[in-house]
Amino acid sequence: MGSSAENNSLRSIDRTVVEQIVRQVTLEYLGQKNGSVAPKLTVQASSRHMHICREDMDILFGPGAELTLDRPLFQEGNFASKETVTIVGPRSRIISNLRILGPMRKQSQVELAFTDAIMLGFNDIPVRLSGDIAGTPGAVIVGPKGVVEMRQGVIRAAIHVHMNPAEAAHFGVAQNDRMKLRVGGAACLTFNHVHVRIDPTSRLNVHMDTDEANACGLHLAKEFELLK
Amino acid sequence: MGSSAENNSLRSIDRTVVEQIVRQVTLEYLGQKNGSVAPKLTVQASSRHMHICREDMDILFGPGAELTLDRPLFQEGNFASKETVTIVGPRSRIISNLRILGPMRKQSQVELAFTDAIMLGFNDIPVRLSGDIAGTPGAVIVGPKGVVEMRQGVIRAAIHVHMNPAEAAHFGVAQNDRMKLRVGGAACLTFNHVHVRIDPTSRLNVHMDTDEANACGLHLAKEFELLK
Repeated sequence: MGSSAENNSLRSIDRTVVEQIVRQVTLEYLGQKNGSVAPKLTVQASSRHMHICREDMDILFGPGAELTLDRPLFQEGNFASKETVTIVGPRSRIISNLRILGPMRKQSQVELAFTDAIMLGFNDIPVRLSGDIAGTPGAVIVGPKGVVEMRQGVIRAAIHVHMNPAEAAHFGVAQNDRMKLRVGGAACLTFNHVHVRIDPTSRLNVHMDTDEANACGLHLAKEFELLK
Repeated sequence: MGSSAENNSLRSIDRTVVEQIVRQVTLEYLGQKNGSVAPKLTVQASSRHMHICREDMDILFGPGAELTLDRPLFQEGNFASKETVTIVGPRSRIISNLRILGPMRKQSQVELAFTDAIMLGFNDIPVRLSGDIAGTPGAVIVGPKGVVEMRQGVIRAAIHVHMNPAEAAHFGVAQNDRMKLRVGGAACLTFNHVHVRIDPTSRLNVHMDTDEANACGLHLAKEFELLK
């Protein structure tokens, strides 16, 4: 403990050091060591999947059952679980082996590509951001220990980009903004409504569904441009 | 037959009349009677299908067999036939009820969405304009009277727009140019490589495959912009 003047001085030094460290870490994270400016962008296709709440987990897999790790996903803490369910659509058509992604959430939700929705007999499912499920269609979910009738929660996930605040600053975008993603190659598509989702734990990463991935030839694409 | 001067005069009158008629018909066709300028644009999804040559028709459906009309397609003279075949992919997976579109062509060709290609076990199929099949994958086609091993001809059809010369003039585009198609709505996609195919018998019409249609939510889309 020193005098008030010393404390002020220490605070000044600390702030400079902290700013240097933050800057260095941010630049390294963004891959700017050699003067390049663009954060590394990855684009991934999300296959159809389910998010599950505690209550539905109890019914479908037994009281107190937990999700078990199959493989980690790109966003830290998220994972594909070993657990799968069967979804029954409005015309009694089914898709088996619908994988559950962890961790558990407050609400159950099923994310399908439109092709999946057609296979299940839905006339349409709305394009929504994850979690925004009010008024969406439901479905029957069959697990090894029980059946849940979801009243709502079947959506086509809106294409979105995860990023942390430093990456958002780089692009000059804010939470809930929309960006454009141009995917080069033979098909050459631009997705005009890529929703921005900013979180300190996120890594720069676009999620699209399998219809979007198939339309733009994502498996072969090498050119990606994320634009404000 | 009159003098040379009379002939010239007649030719002049004829040209004026002809030009008037052409202009009037063109404007009516383009819906410009009330000063509106845009030709009416329709956008359609092409489901997977086959085009067939005479030789393969003979093998698959019997010597001299003809395609029979199921329903006419938007482009004059083209039709969905009642005839279907089964396609066997590289890993012995099959799709039944692959419909043949008429009329017959010089070369057999199968147009699949990428989703179809995956279902059949193809690792990839190239994006090509119809007819441009050199070096593309083949497949086994099974018909009611025989089997054909196509050496090549399985493609993902490049998104394209049919138009007649008047419509091409309206847009200021030439054969083989590329245009952009912006499809509004929740997904809001822009297709950057829409190939221009000009033919006097064509009607303005964009063809995309089912993956592209599902990605952009074509069944619900109301806003279409075709841009140079």
